[in-house]
Amino acid sequence: MAIKTLGAKAAAALDQELMSTGAFSIDQLMELAGLAVSQAVYRVQPLEKGPRILVACGPGNNGGDGLVAARHLFYYGYRPTIFYPKRSKNELYQRLAKQLEDLDVPFADDFPTAMKSTDHIVDAIFGFSFSGEVREPFPDVIKSLQETKIPVTSVDAPSSWDIENGPPKTGLGSSFMPTALVSLTAPKPLVNHFTGRHFVGGRFVSPSIAKKYNFDVPPYQGIDQIVEIGPSEQKL
Amino acid sequence: MAIKTLGAKAAAALDQELMSTGAFSIDQLMELAGLAVSQAVYRVQPLEKGPRILVACGPGNNGGDGLVAARHLFYYGYRPTIFYPKRSKNELYQRLAKQLEDLDVPFADDFPTAMKSTDHIVDAIFGFSFSGEVREPFPDVIKSLQETKIPVTSVDAPSSWDIENGPPKTGLGSSFMPTALVSLTAPKPLVNHFTGRHFVGGRFVSPSIAKKYNFDVPPYQGIDQIVEIGPSEQKL
Repeated sequence: MAIKTLGAKAAAALDQELMSTGAFSIDQLMELAGLAVSQAVYRVQPLEKGPRILVACGPGNNGGDGLVAARHLFYYGYRPTIFYPKRSKNELYQRLAKQLEDLDVPFADDFPTAMKSTDHIVDAIFGFSFSGEVREPFPDVIKSLQETKIPVTSVDAPSSWDIENGPPKTGLGSSFMPTALVSLTAPKPLVNHFTGRHFVGGRFVSPSIAKKYNFDVPPYQGIDQIVEIGPSEQKL
Repeated sequence: MAIKTLGAKAAAALDQELMSTGAFSIDQLMELAGLAVSQAVYRVQPLEKGPRILVACGPGNNGGDGLVAARHLFYYGYRPTIFYPKRSKNELYQRLAKQLEDLDVPFADDFPTAMKSTDHIVDAIFGFSFSGEVREPFPDVIKSLQETKIPVTSVDAPSSWDIENGPPKTGLGSSFMPTALVSLTAPKPLVNHFTGRHFVGGRFVSPSIAKKYNFDVPPYQGIDQIVEIGPSEQKL
């Protein structure tokens, strides 16, 4: 039995529902999403494997999740560096960036240089609203991500992948397979093409929302905001 | 060496600083505070000791922290019930209450009746901004809390206690000693009168803020949002 997934349109509708009738603010949801990402990184990249985390942030919500995750990682004892070349004028993202600046977390200007001194990379470039072409300056970043041997954790989607169909057939991103993926809220159809470690972080979705959008709430344990979904559960 | 504490005025100034130059939103801070409380309850009242948690919420921020904690406790597998007799018109608290209603978490009208079927109580009535008299309808609630044998976890302050001087010398609250206390951001001076299990939840305070307000960041472990401060660290 294949895992139940949430298509791009359904994911957008669910987000909209959480923030309207669900009464969540985007601050709240982004805090919980970023917290989930930080907990997955803590599993994939235990501190003793190296504390330097390069967080590549895109211009939208996926980048915001990355900024929140970086802050939590700082508190866990990691040394995050942020690559955030397309800073949004959105007030929330500006505040999230300020919170990192107040922790003296460095912002890198050049991705290849920053990659030379990191132990792990978080890909928070594009999320479930991505479609079409990878815009500048991100093609070179995606190229680096697909070529590097440094482990990569992607947030919600491996950046450049199509949300429904997975990796591009040819060209940029076609051979990008991150070490780990954190599906936020619920897995998207692209997970059927993903062969790395797969986590779900959506412990803020009510049973009624999960039922309405027809996905299963995975077996979160204890106080964890994430759960690792094994290959056996992912596909049969 | 006594633990370094944060007086009521300093705590208010710190909160204000986090939300102005610190660029945090109250949604974000309340989510993190409530999450910390939920993690402390998870330690004090493991699920196997009984999953029913009665959360008594006051009209202000302390009550908001309680509402957030109740939501996280629901996701951990507890069965929270909310007592929230003075509902605020504040939009944030209304949203936090709606999030619980969407989980079918019950709201109780009568505190003594609700106490008859609970395993643990969270006291989220008054926080660091409390001073003076306990207003209606809370005197009866405080009386119940100080008489009950059901374990109680207080949020930031045992309700009715003076933030600087601890329990009232006589009358209401003078013999109230909760099982556990979660100091949010940093311990307040009242902790010098507290003899139960003491947790600190403030893993969102930057090193520079801690330095400026002259308190120590306790040794949080792993991904925990709380740390238990043993009596030996509390007083010598």
